[in-house]
Amino acid sequence: MRVALIPLFLAGCRSEPATEGATPSLADVTAQIEEMLHASARSWNAGDLDAFVDDYANSPRTSFAGATGVIYGIDEIRARYERTYWAPGATRDSLSFEILEVRSLEPSYALALGRYLLSDPASGALVSSGYFSLVLERQDNGWKIIHDHTSASPPPPDTP
Amino acid sequence: MRVALIPLFLAGCRSEPATEGATPSLADVTAQIEEMLHASARSWNAGDLDAFVDDYANSPRTSFAGATGVIYGIDEIRARYERTYWAPGATRDSLSFEILEVRSLEPSYALALGRYLLSDPASGALVSSGYFSLVLERQDNGWKIIHDHTSASPPPPDTP
Repeated sequence: MRVALIPLFLAGCRSEPATEGATPSLADVTAQIEEMLHASARSWNAGDLDAFVDDYANSPRTSFAGATGVIYGIDEIRARYERTYWAPGATRDSLSFEILEVRSLEPSYALALGRYLLSDPASGALVSSGYFSLVLERQDNGWKIIHDHTSASPPPPDTP
Repeated sequence: MRVALIPLFLAGCRSEPATEGATPSLADVTAQIEEMLHASARSWNAGDLDAFVDDYANSPRTSFAGATGVIYGIDEIRARYERTYWAPGATRDSLSFEILEVRSLEPSYALALGRYLLSDPASGALVSSGYFSLVLERQDNGWKIIHDHTSASPPPPDTP
């Protein structure tokens, strides 16, 4: 049996209005994170890098991992997008997310698993895809990604 | 400012001896998880799949993500190793881990980032490597992996 932990809200310690009196349900957390991610894809598709990057926690400790290693910091994560998809002349395919699962890591964290799909905006044909695992923290301004591990899927084998 | 949360230990709700009166420090958590992972590599190198898999939470919800998708459940994770590295006749290279970072997600979770290296046991030459992100939960029998996202690194380009 795990040690029992009860979150105790200390009203005297906070100055914000008491809008969140109880831990949100998993359904609420899932809906919040799904909405955030679908909005993130809309920001990408609108070419709005500021809004897209705003879903990452504004911290030098925010991290992004993949096959080639780990980078740290919201500035470096933004710079990576500027060098790649937002580079002058680069094409930016249409982004969508399939959310596979949201798991609550109470009280302040969550894990979201999903698949990204990049498609040709004109034809709708799938260009590339992959899987991501996000660790999110509930902050005053909503859920923010504190760690992103993304793996690009290998291209399908050529068919004769 | 985040909502203040204070963990409150309810002595009347638990039957185990009160061995853990306070939240462990990040240094303690880091040392515990590093030791667990290095022991895990020793289990791999001893060919002990039971001990290696025991570091994953014994749950059908435990998940393993990578470039080709997500699999669920300790049984499926074990079966994947049986089909690959533990298959009859398969060679199993020597495993080691470099732990890049352990981050506490208080009170009961942690995030560990690292790199795995598989080397030829005879020559010591690196055969393959990659990066992993682990979400761990503090359970009665120690830290257990509840989600593993691993990306194999691409092989280095051929040199002339």
